[in-house]
Amino acid sequence: MRTLVPFDATDPKTRLAGLFTPSERRDLAGVLLADVLAALRAAGGDPLVVATESVDCAAPVVVDERPLSEAVNARLDAGTAVVMADLALATPRALARFFAADGDVVLAPGLGGGTNALVVRDDAFAVDYHGTSYLDHLRAAHEGGLSVREFDATRLALDVDERADLADVLVRGEGEAGAWLREAGVRLDRTGGRTTVTRSE
Amino acid sequence: MRTLVPFDATDPKTRLAGLFTPSERRDLAGVLLADVLAALRAAGGDPLVVATESVDCAAPVVVDERPLSEAVNARLDAGTAVVMADLALATPRALARFFAADGDVVLAPGLGGGTNALVVRDDAFAVDYHGTSYLDHLRAAHEGGLSVREFDATRLALDVDERADLADVLVRGEGEAGAWLREAGVRLDRTGGRTTVTRSE
Repeated sequence: MRTLVPFDATDPKTRLAGLFTPSERRDLAGVLLADVLAALRAAGGDPLVVATESVDCAAPVVVDERPLSEAVNARLDAGTAVVMADLALATPRALARFFAADGDVVLAPGLGGGTNALVVRDDAFAVDYHGTSYLDHLRAAHEGGLSVREFDATRLALDVDERADLADVLVRGEGEAGAWLREAGVRLDRTGGRTTVTRSE
Repeated sequence: MRTLVPFDATDPKTRLAGLFTPSERRDLAGVLLADVLAALRAAGGDPLVVATESVDCAAPVVVDERPLSEAVNARLDAGTAVVMADLALATPRALARFFAADGDVVLAPGLGGGTNALVVRDDAFAVDYHGTSYLDHLRAAHEGGLSVREFDATRLALDVDERADLADVLVRGEGEAGAWLREAGVRLDRTGGRTTVTRSE
């Protein structure tokens, strides 16, 4: 399935600035992107990276400086998927099941109300990533008379934004990002209430 | 399926102390428990609440003051499930699929490396909730020669511990906990980097 993969090549992963330098954050974002692209291809996806600036990766890239929703909608034909570039737990198996799910619109919610992945099978649907996009996308599909399927999977719900998200990458990630984190000295830390990570060089 | 539901009736939800009084936290824990029990029954579960002290709820309760793992292992026969009492997104559909999943041991990982729900079909398996229990349970099953299935679902991965978890309850919860939170003045807050909640009286 044709799959748009939006990618912030400019200043990615700002909420990890306490752990990593800007250069390291760009490296990590690139490794996460590579993991997602590999999983997509293994699941039968045909990825097109929609990036804020040029990036070197194992897929075609189009640079589009417009805001995320505009850049995606400009390319969102029926039969297209959109998958975020930082879904570090995504496996070929989870993505293949996602592609195969029925529905005019298939939504994979992220934690906190975002939309981490979607499949669109009707030209009338447009994305709007501003705000609590999962609820907005549900509403838009219902208002458009489209059938909607919620695709519930942690492997697509976990995007890498915060320090605590890295714990899940260390525990369950199957791509290269886990190795990158370990190489950078990132380790599980369970001394506080919630499992998170610390870094030692 | 016979299902143990461990429940902290004494001082629950301590990481929400910044939002709620101790009495409110006990109330919320009770509403979460009621939601889980209702979803379990609708999924064909036969719940037994294993509580730290007596609690009034719509299921049989046994009080066991021992640490969590001991209290669970004392009752963990083959053909038993264990489901945590604060899985606010759990639906009958997700739990029915969970009960039906194949494997000597079926593990539903929580965010951060915990084990939010499991099914055991072999008497040799024991739980150990200390530490990164998901990895420990995987290892124990493999070492015991048992077949293991990872059951990946956000609806079982999200337990209510932190303030940000309440955002997911407001966005996707289908039980009474969402209404309880709204009644208490809890609202989505997207002013920071990650969606969380604020409270106004």
